[in-house]
Amino acid sequence: MNQATEQLKHHLAEIGHLHRAIALLDWDQQTYMPPGGARARAEQIGYLSGLAHARFISQDTLRLLEAAEQAAADADPESDEARLLANARRDFDHAVKIPAELAAEIAEHTSHAQQIWQTARRQKDFSLFAPALDRTLDLVRRVADLLGYPSEPYDALLDEYEPGIRTADVAAIFDQLKPALVEITRERSANRTIGPSNPFSGVFPAADQHKLTLRVVEAIGYDLSRGRQDTSAHPFTTNFSRDDVRITTRFDESRPDYALYSSMHEAGHALYEQGIPQEYDNTPLGAAASMGFHESQSRMWENFVGRSRAFVEWIWPLLADTFPSSLERWTPERFHTEVNRVQPSLIRVEADEVTYNLHILLRFELEREMLNGRIHVRELPREWNERMEAYLGIVPPDDGDGVLQDIHWSAALIGYFPTYTLGNLIAAQLWHRIHTSMPHLGQQIAAGEFAPLLNWLRDHVHRFGRKYRPAELLERATGEAFSPAYLIAHLRDGAV
Amino acid sequence: MNQATEQLKHHLAEIGHLHRAIALLDWDQQTYMPPGGARARAEQIGYLSGLAHARFISQDTLRLLEAAEQAAADADPESDEARLLANARRDFDHAVKIPAELAAEIAEHTSHAQQIWQTARRQKDFSLFAPALDRTLDLVRRVADLLGYPSEPYDALLDEYEPGIRTADVAAIFDQLKPALVEITRERSANRTIGPSNPFSGVFPAADQHKLTLRVVEAIGYDLSRGRQDTSAHPFTTNFSRDDVRITTRFDESRPDYALYSSMHEAGHALYEQGIPQEYDNTPLGAAASMGFHESQSRMWENFVGRSRAFVEWIWPLLADTFPSSLERWTPERFHTEVNRVQPSLIRVEADEVTYNLHILLRFELEREMLNGRIHVRELPREWNERMEAYLGIVPPDDGDGVLQDIHWSAALIGYFPTYTLGNLIAAQLWHRIHTSMPHLGQQIAAGEFAPLLNWLRDHVHRFGRKYRPAELLERATGEAFSPAYLIAHLRDGAV
Repeated sequence: MNQATEQLKHHLAEIGHLHRAIALLDWDQQTYMPPGGARARAEQIGYLSGLAHARFISQDTLRLLEAAEQAAADADPESDEARLLANARRDFDHAVKIPAELAAEIAEHTSHAQQIWQTARRQKDFSLFAPALDRTLDLVRRVADLLGYPSEPYDALLDEYEPGIRTADVAAIFDQLKPALVEITRERSANRTIGPSNPFSGVFPAADQHKLTLRVVEAIGYDLSRGRQDTSAHPFTTNFSRDDVRITTRFDESRPDYALYSSMHEAGHALYEQGIPQEYDNTPLGAAASMGFHESQSRMWENFVGRSRAFVEWIWPLLADTFPSSLERWTPERFHTEVNRVQPSLIRVEADEVTYNLHILLRFELEREMLNGRIHVRELPREWNERMEAYLGIVPPDDGDGVLQDIHWSAALIGYFPTYTLGNLIAAQLWHRIHTSMPHLGQQIAAGEFAPLLNWLRDHVHRFGRKYRPAELLERATGEAFSPAYLIAHLRDGAV
Repeated sequence: MNQATEQLKHHLAEIGHLHRAIALLDWDQQTYMPPGGARARAEQIGYLSGLAHARFISQDTLRLLEAAEQAAADADPESDEARLLANARRDFDHAVKIPAELAAEIAEHTSHAQQIWQTARRQKDFSLFAPALDRTLDLVRRVADLLGYPSEPYDALLDEYEPGIRTADVAAIFDQLKPALVEITRERSANRTIGPSNPFSGVFPAADQHKLTLRVVEAIGYDLSRGRQDTSAHPFTTNFSRDDVRITTRFDESRPDYALYSSMHEAGHALYEQGIPQEYDNTPLGAAASMGFHESQSRMWENFVGRSRAFVEWIWPLLADTFPSSLERWTPERFHTEVNRVQPSLIRVEADEVTYNLHILLRFELEREMLNGRIHVRELPREWNERMEAYLGIVPPDDGDGVLQDIHWSAALIGYFPTYTLGNLIAAQLWHRIHTSMPHLGQQIAAGEFAPLLNWLRDHVHRFGRKYRPAELLERATGEAFSPAYLIAHLRDGAV
């Protein structure tokens, strides 16, 4: 890369150091920080975030960016340099459109709104949260207006998480998914009685689960010399470089499956980050292609691998050895059946693979319609419950387990939900392609040989970092555009 | 405080946020970071350190400082405001004297020198390290010249760690201590045969030691809602606010005493930091008075409290319950005797309370004479061994356990060692004063009532933060100037 680009990279890497320090402040807050540390930690994160933003939207950045663009004007548009500069330009143009005051206002409002949301959820009273959500909608509408959009405000928000995808594309995907999902849910849950919500009995000690999950994530390829697993209230993945990518989980001593699948999910995210090339690290190319692509990796390991017959075959001796008495009456077949049970339920994060996407559909519709002014905040609980009834056939007993269940709206993360379903869709499409080129994948998984699969993902997804837009990357990896057909087929077949 | 001072405080607090982020990056590096994280972490710490330094020595700081000084010109010189500004001025004047290039040169050199030192120590070959130490001496001499000094370069270095104390003061203290320490060592170690180096046998599981040490540090007053204990290769204390003060320890499963006393030592440091007033936090008043005062608190809890008969009386049931089989043949009397055994040994960090100060004396003399050009780096091993023979009666078999044992010189920490003995001296002087005003201290400790002692330290030391210089603080707390008499008397009596 030319010298002007190197200078820009150096400047952006410095801002990257600040972002990574912020990520560590946040990781620590969620894992080890004693309660007393909260007040100062909020100040530290607030200050460093403001500093990083100010340095990014500075004249220094613009000057270095313009110089690099000029110097690289004749570069191959497919080259790393051209793509790096395009990403830097996109990030810069987006960031400068949001005035520092608005960014600070959003930060302050969301910090406040999350407190209110917690109270409202605890008290199961949406009316407490409604004014905060009204304000959130005003703020994100202002963001959308500042960023600009081709046809509706939701486009601008969605594009922040899934570059290049429009609201209409997502709607078209859901138009295909919706009838299929409703039908599959009816089919796959109809033949079963509603079992007890927890099919397991006995105790699954956290320390044993921790050893087991570590062994599993290491087996699938997560490099523990460049990562670690800790516990936190909400599992997440973060990184401070591509050589220090950390996951967290939590242990429920009555459920051996929760930490297992949550660990595989987070390890899927982590494998992506660990697979980004060294030379991309801490540059505008050193990230996932999109939130949807990130989710495709976590969902693939969690669901497509983890809930397959082949995987259960591999893990069963480990599981049975780790919890000999609690799993005494279990068989691998029963375990496989239980972790693939489809059953409408109220809470998104506890939903099975099929109904999960109906939860997302509902949120997407509501967000879009609120943003377009077609429904008002005060109507939200009624709209929520009506759609739960229509899509899943169940109605929450109160707003706590209904419209108030997710943190996202209190954090102003509007436009984010669709990336979960896009992740499932991308995972299914990649999975189909992988199966075509790796006929022995099932046997390999059953034998605990995960390297061939990981290598495919490294070669076709991870190593490109953020070089390609999601649609372009999917096309390169699978030869096709986005298509819900593979996800529908996968869900219709049930786990295999 | 006037508005100009508030503005200065705000500006300095922002720089403080950066320093605290750096402290977390460092804490994480020493506790949880996977090996892969090292490369990026060094860059992150390097960048944030440079940024914090640049912002501190900026014209912004000078402008705000001068405005505050002007606005507070008539403030009572004993007021918090006047003392805060005096500290800010002192820190600023010191920092601006060191050009950024020299600071960077030192940082780069020490990073390199520590690698060389590790190799030299491993290979027990001082000649490998000598050139690096020569360069270190050149660099710190340049620092001393830039800072200025009243009579010899060592004054400038010492003053960075122990403000207001001069080399001649330290030399005068050691002139009194030296004959007494040599004599006490002879007396207290003469009547004993040299026992096995580890008087314990059996296994002391790390998990049990961890529980025990947590219970002990909590009992002496360390607030775990504002702190935590983790493990690291070298125990240390750090803080990210006065409400998040963390300690680390390490566990040797053949020695129950190491982690116990190391935890009490670090908790002593932590109690000081936790006791600094909320309103001083992240301001130029929100720190210990000096390194010596910091060490006085750690040494007091480790040695004066921890090795006393009263404390052993209190802790014995806990110890015996935690390790019933390994301590089966032990009595509290024997434990007390063993943890107070005086025995010349090669390694400073393993030395007993008496000979420890002779190790410091030796280092102080050598540093001072090297800096004054009276001894050359190449002569150092011979000088080291001759003085070990003269003061402790033993000679290291090689440089690894001799002149190469400490990290300090590779880190350019020259002028730091004396603060260890000053800490012991301050602890003894405070301890004498405390005993005078708290006649039942022994009974309280034996009963596990540590709050009265902690309250005294809070009232007479902690709550002043960095408001007073060490000599002033000691005078206020004890009514007397520095005096080695109390330390000598304490060491002569043996533990009581």
